[in-house]
Amino acid sequence: MATTGGEAATATNKQVILRDYVIGFPTESDLIFNDTTVVLKVPAGSKTVLLKNIYLSCDPYMRIRMGKPDPATAALAQSYNPGEPIYAFGVSRVIDSGHPDYTKGDLIWGIVGWEEYSLITPNFSHFKIQHTDIPLSYYTGLLGMAGMTAYAGFHEICSPKKGEAVFVSAASGAVGQLVGQFAKIMGCYVVGSAGSNEKVDLLKNKFGFHDAFNYKEEKDLYGTLKRFFPEGIDIYFENVGGELLDAVLLNMKLHGRIAVCGMISQYNLEVQEGVHNLATVIYKRLRVQGFVVSDYFHKYLQYLDFVLPCIREGKITYVEDIVQGLENGPAALIGLFHGKNVGKQLIVVSPE
Amino acid sequence: MATTGGEAATATNKQVILRDYVIGFPTESDLIFNDTTVVLKVPAGSKTVLLKNIYLSCDPYMRIRMGKPDPATAALAQSYNPGEPIYAFGVSRVIDSGHPDYTKGDLIWGIVGWEEYSLITPNFSHFKIQHTDIPLSYYTGLLGMAGMTAYAGFHEICSPKKGEAVFVSAASGAVGQLVGQFAKIMGCYVVGSAGSNEKVDLLKNKFGFHDAFNYKEEKDLYGTLKRFFPEGIDIYFENVGGELLDAVLLNMKLHGRIAVCGMISQYNLEVQEGVHNLATVIYKRLRVQGFVVSDYFHKYLQYLDFVLPCIREGKITYVEDIVQGLENGPAALIGLFHGKNVGKQLIVVSPE
Repeated sequence: MATTGGEAATATNKQVILRDYVIGFPTESDLIFNDTTVVLKVPAGSKTVLLKNIYLSCDPYMRIRMGKPDPATAALAQSYNPGEPIYAFGVSRVIDSGHPDYTKGDLIWGIVGWEEYSLITPNFSHFKIQHTDIPLSYYTGLLGMAGMTAYAGFHEICSPKKGEAVFVSAASGAVGQLVGQFAKIMGCYVVGSAGSNEKVDLLKNKFGFHDAFNYKEEKDLYGTLKRFFPEGIDIYFENVGGELLDAVLLNMKLHGRIAVCGMISQYNLEVQEGVHNLATVIYKRLRVQGFVVSDYFHKYLQYLDFVLPCIREGKITYVEDIVQGLENGPAALIGLFHGKNVGKQLIVVSPE
Repeated sequence: MATTGGEAATATNKQVILRDYVIGFPTESDLIFNDTTVVLKVPAGSKTVLLKNIYLSCDPYMRIRMGKPDPATAALAQSYNPGEPIYAFGVSRVIDSGHPDYTKGDLIWGIVGWEEYSLITPNFSHFKIQHTDIPLSYYTGLLGMAGMTAYAGFHEICSPKKGEAVFVSAASGAVGQLVGQFAKIMGCYVVGSAGSNEKVDLLKNKFGFHDAFNYKEEKDLYGTLKRFFPEGIDIYFENVGGELLDAVLLNMKLHGRIAVCGMISQYNLEVQEGVHNLATVIYKRLRVQGFVVSDYFHKYLQYLDFVLPCIREGKITYVEDIVQGLENGPAALIGLFHGKNVGKQLIVVSPE
């Protein structure tokens, strides 16, 4: 990093570094800490922005970036570079800027390093935060990437209609909890699955899902879904993959839609589970559509127009799982893949 | 069957009967012959139509009807009843009619029994044949169900654009050969796969596919597809399923489309093969869409407007595999599942 002169102040910048490409489930030892020094001014003449990071988001897709480069996944996410800080969505305050659109004190959300300070070149994935009557941490999820994912996936991909039957997997997670609530606002019947009774309780009693179940306690997922959807599922919001998808396929209604948002059950497997009931896609004329939120970032203001009134009127409940300190970030991130988080997982790097 | 009086003429009616529900690959002994007697007049006062069947079509989906009733497949096709004649698309001549829309001598195509004479109640899947300058047998395929399948699947489901890269499996079959030619007419680059060198030769030298390969001679289907589509596949017209689908998924381009028309490799398996690379649907934002031709029958006249000029101008080549005699029908049908047919498989039941 260039400096602007001997007089510029500096600070220690703790960073989280990927030790090496991960195979199988990540462990805490895959992420190591490194202290560097950051100059608290942007390089003279650059259009960069220096950020102090406040919150960092932990999201399942980050597992894909931890694996070795793979042409199959490259279209979604490039791998992190071993020996360098990992990066993800976060909420940050501008402390210096060479960019005409940003000034000191601005708040932004977007991609930043897992570190205390990040020097970024703003791009389409960085958004200035305009509404600060909402908790700032919500911009790591509800008002950020997870919210946009739920919105684009449900409203743009699922073609929902009032009265339709919606099933959401990983339903208490950052995206799932919102999909369920957006579906309810639309007038759909919505059931969610999650991996603990505590989460099922959240789904039913806090997020207002019509029903919910703990998939770990079900022996026959086909029969379970049949019980909750005796007439079939119109819309499946897919976050999980594998065995659950197979059971869903057999329970879909004619002309059903499956929005494929994620497949967290598969990310840590060296050989992906086989899905056996794909011919159902023909028999039931299903549409299975993958999507990636960054393709919808241009609709962010439209999303805010929809979601801000819902939040302000108390129509949306949002649960966060907040961990204090960057030093506890790796454990929080890895916990996602064991279902340890309850609600949106995020890390506090520094006080607001 | 009721008769209209003692004086009505009768005839022997040879029928092909399903002995019992089939498990695994069907064999000739699953289909047995039965001679009944048919009265050559429709029941007085009925709106039925009596047909003399000329051609019968052999299509892969018929295997689904041969299995025991299964809620998973019921939305596509009900099972045949053991002890009763099987039925399928055919071309027939009206020999008597109580229906106001049909008169003696009319030619129709649609669902009829595998028998010499069929008494039908016309419905949305029966079409009167208006254009007889084209070989009548074509109405079992190119101008019938297979043609509509190729048209709806390619033009309605695949959203093709000029210059796109199209891959068709089971490409020399009734549907595949047409999809490839429709894609060429659209200005796409099109490659097909088939199961013999004779079929590959047909694809390249008769149907005008840009390229083609024999999947049985390829050890690494992923690499094979990479060779033919170094920049990836925009559109996959899926007739096969299983291992080939897995290889295709990894070779799809961003925002690619997969029209799922059939999965012939799976119909005879008791446990369906697993498809392992479904997460690619996310990474590449793919749309995978199943469809069933009967949902598109209302577009038949629109299809004729498109395809008749192409046929008359010699822009479409069509290959049939014609077997003489209902008694050779079972072997022809079963041959489909071993790839024995070269082109559209059909049976001549009686002379035109």
